[in-house]
Amino acid sequence: MVTSFHEELRSAAAAEWTAMLAHPFLARTAAGTIAPVAFHRWLAQDFHYARELLRVMGILLARAPSPHGALLLDGLVAMKNELALFAAEAAARGVDLTAPLAPACRDYTSFLQATAFRADLVEAWAAFYAQEAAYLDCWREVKRRQQGAASPYQSFIDNWSSDGFAGYVAALAAALDELARGITPDARVRVERTFRAVVDHEIRFWDLAFEQA
Amino acid sequence: MVTSFHEELRSAAAAEWTAMLAHPFLARTAAGTIAPVAFHRWLAQDFHYARELLRVMGILLARAPSPHGALLLDGLVAMKNELALFAAEAAARGVDLTAPLAPACRDYTSFLQATAFRADLVEAWAAFYAQEAAYLDCWREVKRRQQGAASPYQSFIDNWSSDGFAGYVAALAAALDELARGITPDARVRVERTFRAVVDHEIRFWDLAFEQA
Amino acid sequence: MVTSFHEELRSAAAAEWTAMLAHPFLARTAAGTIAPVAFHRWLAQDFHYARELLRVMGILLARAPSPHGALLLDGLVAMKNELALFAAEAAARGVDLTAPLAPACRDYTSFLQATAFRADLVEAWAAFYAQEAAYLDCWREVKRRQQGAASPYQSFIDNWSSDGFAGYVAALAAALDELARGITPDARVRVERTFRAVVDHEIRFWDLAFEQA
Amino acid sequence: MVTSFHEELRSAAAAEWTAMLAHPFLARTAAGTIAPVAFHRWLAQDFHYARELLRVMGILLARAPSPHGALLLDGLVAMKNELALFAAEAAARGVDLTAPLAPACRDYTSFLQATAFRADLVEAWAAFYAQEAAYLDCWREVKRRQQGAASPYQSFIDNWSSDGFAGYVAALAAALDELARGITPDARVRVERTFRAVVDHEIRFWDLAFEQA
Repeated sequence: MVTSFHEELRSAAAAEWTAMLAHPFLARTAAGTIAPVAFHRWLAQDFHYARELLRVMGILLARAPSPHGALLLDGLVAMKNELALFAAEAAARGVDLTAPLAPACRDYTSFLQATAFRADLVEAWAAFYAQEAAYLDCWREVKRRQQGAASPYQSFIDNWSSDGFAGYVAALAAALDELARGITPDARVRVERTFRAVVDHEIRFWDLAFEQA
Repeated sequence: MVTSFHEELRSAAAAEWTAMLAHPFLARTAAGTIAPVAFHRWLAQDFHYARELLRVMGILLARAPSPHGALLLDGLVAMKNELALFAAEAAARGVDLTAPLAPACRDYTSFLQATAFRADLVEAWAAFYAQEAAYLDCWREVKRRQQGAASPYQSFIDNWSSDGFAGYVAALAAALDELARGITPDARVRVERTFRAVVDHEIRFWDLAFEQA
Repeated sequence: MVTSFHEELRSAAAAEWTAMLAHPFLARTAAGTIAPVAFHRWLAQDFHYARELLRVMGILLARAPSPHGALLLDGLVAMKNELALFAAEAAARGVDLTAPLAPACRDYTSFLQATAFRADLVEAWAAFYAQEAAYLDCWREVKRRQQGAASPYQSFIDNWSSDGFAGYVAALAAALDELARGITPDARVRVERTFRAVVDHEIRFWDLAFEQA
Repeated sequence: MVTSFHEELRSAAAAEWTAMLAHPFLARTAAGTIAPVAFHRWLAQDFHYARELLRVMGILLARAPSPHGALLLDGLVAMKNELALFAAEAAARGVDLTAPLAPACRDYTSFLQATAFRADLVEAWAAFYAQEAAYLDCWREVKRRQQGAASPYQSFIDNWSSDGFAGYVAALAAALDELARGITPDARVRVERTFRAVVDHEIRFWDLAFEQA
């Protein structure tokens, strides 16, 4: 059986991926022991992240061939709703969304934006896929560990572990596999390095919540 | 009473704007005397145009401050529906949407994309506003000349002369005025030149329909 | 014997390339019968072109892997000298280099800039190579037809038919062949279309000189 | 007496700037007590940095008005020589320039590239100016503390504390002041934040040398 390109990427970064899923932020969110101040700090930065991700998606939309562009357009519509969810949840919890952008968030989104602009499309798309797939897997890990217990953060858990989101991530993976046809060994090395860098940024982003917490 | 920046731009290009509104394509569409082959040629190129405009909007989304980004996100949702309207109308009329991109369409969209990428945001936004405002005014001109007579192209006429579309164009104008605050005389000269170039491209685009027709 | 990618591109556009080399601007420049007003009009637009090409090279420099970046850096140093040649020649002939950018020049450079920004690197590089190779071949055609007779425009003829420039173009071709490794059939179609579009723009650019002449 | 824009930026970030100049990497380099392994680690990363900075300069070249473009072209010529200095010094010291890009270097250059692409030109230029001015001041600080004693790293110290380099930085400052004419309060806030972010990255970059040292 043939392994697809996106599966190969994930295999090559399996150790980092596993470390990410074992992050204490996720374990504590599942167990209900995460400090509100930590969750709120994460939430404010993730709102920044989502708005910066719109820019990444804009660059990809500018560069992608039409069929993949249609997928991004669907993603942008979803982002519009997601930003509204953030704003509503933040308001309900009294979280200040105007908190300054943290360095770890700035580093992550700068990397994604610079990659979207300058790398070849397969590498830029791999970076975008990586962070969506990471999000899906992280929240599914929370959901799995919850074993049914309710959480004050259930709306987040349910949103990003949903079948709808999983379908979107699968469509991004299929597009990535298509963009990777004929990829040279040199380009593959670059894509793998970028994929790994995204997972590294993802871990540093979860770390954010615990700073001074 | 103070004249706003977008009104000043339009005044500076008033002669070109009037010439655009007097284009025979619009007059004949209103009179019902446009040859189907001409309208279909235009339609196939306008479909290309719409897909290339998505790229322009992507670049602007990547660059615009958040509040203006939200407006672009609304515009992208509208574009999704618009592309579906194109596809449905083309299918109903037997128009081949895979016709090659015509040079005039390629020139126009290249100009918009290059400007969106390299100009300062106020100039890039002015170019985007110019082509949306031109579209609104052109189709309103058709509607006005129709004086109630039905057209085989009524769905297009109604779509781009609607109050909804006018509201979007007004919001783009307001954002442009905001982006133009503090603009230097040099930058103003550049923006005016870009605005005029868009109107020039718009006229060349309407010309397309009559080639070999 | 294997044909290289850049040779295949040139073969696929052989008819357009031949038409370009047969352009009356080149024939008349070689014969010494070109009207000074026509040559001067061309010169002023080519100065615009050169400055806009710097932007194209900037985008490629931002995107290219390091070894190809070094080649662009050499090209940028050469451009610095070339712009000085233009300025000196224009001053000596009383040519006004502040003439407005002509639409054909704007269309050409917009196309190159938009392609440099949004296409995959192999396609963007192909467009850049195409216009340098066209320049070399066009001026070599003038030189060949001259058969030794001196021209008032000898500095231009000699500059762009030189062995030094030919070596640069050959290095760009070699880099293109390397970037094209593993290219998919779909991507090849896009690159061929872009290559042909450059030749089309090149012809429209030579046409510029004869407008109203 | 009027304070120029670039002076205001530096005043607003005076505390960070002073902290940067007091960095132990600089003090130890001046005192001759820096561990070779630390200096070599820094050197390998600074080589990465220089090559990524070429990309930043490419984006600015693509976007800047012509006079500022000429300044960048001079800067690119200097970079060509600087990269050769790096390669020669690294070879003479047995430093491996193929060491992987460190996260702090990737974060810094991603930030500069993302800013160069998406911010308005005044902000993008301010980021570029900030890192060149930081370099000049840091190496002048080393030179000042040296008080004439020779260093094994004298070629670096002399290169970046030279009057030639100071003149280039002054020209970048003058261009920045020109680009800032008419700047709105909102835009000024963004530029100040970006300026500060560069200094923050600069400090993290000097920290690199001491990792595991």
